[in-house]
Amino acid sequence: MVTNDDGITAPGLRALIEVMNEIGDVVVVAPDSPQSAMGHAITINSTLYSSPVNIDDGDQIEYSCSGTAADCVKLAVSEILNKRPALCIAGINHGSNSSINVIYSGTMSAAVEAGIEGIPAIGFSLLDYNWEADFEPVKEYVKRITLAVLEHGLPDGVVLNVNFPKLKKNEIKGVKVCRQAKASWIEEFDKRVNPQGRHYYWLTGHFVNQDQGEDTDEWALANGYVSVVPVQFDLTAHHAIQQLNTWKLNE
Amino acid sequence: MVTNDDGITAPGLRALIEVMNEIGDVVVVAPDSPQSAMGHAITINSTLYSSPVNIDDGDQIEYSCSGTAADCVKLAVSEILNKRPALCIAGINHGSNSSINVIYSGTMSAAVEAGIEGIPAIGFSLLDYNWEADFEPVKEYVKRITLAVLEHGLPDGVVLNVNFPKLKKNEIKGVKVCRQAKASWIEEFDKRVNPQGRHYYWLTGHFVNQDQGEDTDEWALANGYVSVVPVQFDLTAHHAIQQLNTWKLNE
Repeated sequence: MVTNDDGITAPGLRALIEVMNEIGDVVVVAPDSPQSAMGHAITINSTLYSSPVNIDDGDQIEYSCSGTAADCVKLAVSEILNKRPALCIAGINHGSNSSINVIYSGTMSAAVEAGIEGIPAIGFSLLDYNWEADFEPVKEYVKRITLAVLEHGLPDGVVLNVNFPKLKKNEIKGVKVCRQAKASWIEEFDKRVNPQGRHYYWLTGHFVNQDQGEDTDEWALANGYVSVVPVQFDLTAHHAIQQLNTWKLNE
Repeated sequence: MVTNDDGITAPGLRALIEVMNEIGDVVVVAPDSPQSAMGHAITINSTLYSSPVNIDDGDQIEYSCSGTAADCVKLAVSEILNKRPALCIAGINHGSNSSINVIYSGTMSAAVEAGIEGIPAIGFSLLDYNWEADFEPVKEYVKRITLAVLEHGLPDGVVLNVNFPKLKKNEIKGVKVCRQAKASWIEEFDKRVNPQGRHYYWLTGHFVNQDQGEDTDEWALANGYVSVVPVQFDLTAHHAIQQLNTWKLNE
């Protein structure tokens, strides 16, 4: 199954479908409108609609869904697909999901949701926010990484976060398996006044990479490599348990 | 600073404010409407409003915000607070955020957002979804755990996910530092037909704990303990990196 968070008509999804049609039988279940920065939101206080759609002349079967990327995976697995998918592939996202962006990413929430359900999953993202971004240079890597996951499987509780640099095909140096860089966004709220005289804000910000390591996704991308980060959804900071046990919270 | 995802009028937030007023100067920045199951959603394609409000006669200063719990933290830190908060406390959530629920939780997204900004943070949740849930039995633990974090600090990149069993005060056995249980939701979509004849779905499901360990949050809660899980936002599955490197993705 294939999904994304930019919406079912996004060129990044179309590029992904094209590659996946070369690999196997593809069912697309994707949001009917953009759901970026929705994190791991799921729709529990509202209803979900889903409709079969026909967007291009490819071999895939497609459904649009009124929910988030995570909703699409849940709906696909329990209602739409008549068998368990071999893979769940999300993307290709228009824009980076490297480093701390994984936390805010709808694309990666779809991959994680599939991972929770025990389905091998990959989220692909290109470091280009443009709707007209060029996905041609990365298709070969999408195929190669997907075939590798089909061949080797993924460790239990792990999904892949793959990001592509915005480069021409011959400029991409290869693939690096990385850790998530320690980075954050410094918020800059743009404060404005609406026509009724009330203040409101737009959330903006700039990205700061505090991590000098050469084993991070940010380093790989800045140096012309495709970054592959294995992502887990056991969020336990196991290294901190011993320290917290010294706090004597029961005395 | 104090926030939540059930909305600024939620009794769980009121209980939390009462305890925090005993500890220090409290500024509340909380959603003006419920934002549960929003995961780590942030508002980038829409505007944010914030207004000073006065909801009870406590000593705290309060602002409502039109966004998600994560938005509230971002807005508080960059626009509303005139100094960096000593702590960010989220909750007390009406309902569990233990085990895999941490992924979907707006409460924990607020704590994680603060953690990313380097602010020590705790998310508190009570295993009772009722709006009239009784928060009295857990106030003592909220205070004790908060004071411990103020005293000891938290390891870099770690926030706390604290869940309370739904028990009377004398039935709570104490506090256990735990790992996140391996668990998931089995979806059961409730398929209905709307008045216009179109099918739609409600997302429902039941929770399945696949984890037999006695060191998990689910075990602690089922056995009468308060669970404290250290949560990290470096999602890298470090143990999987070596294995992925054997895949030879560059050949």
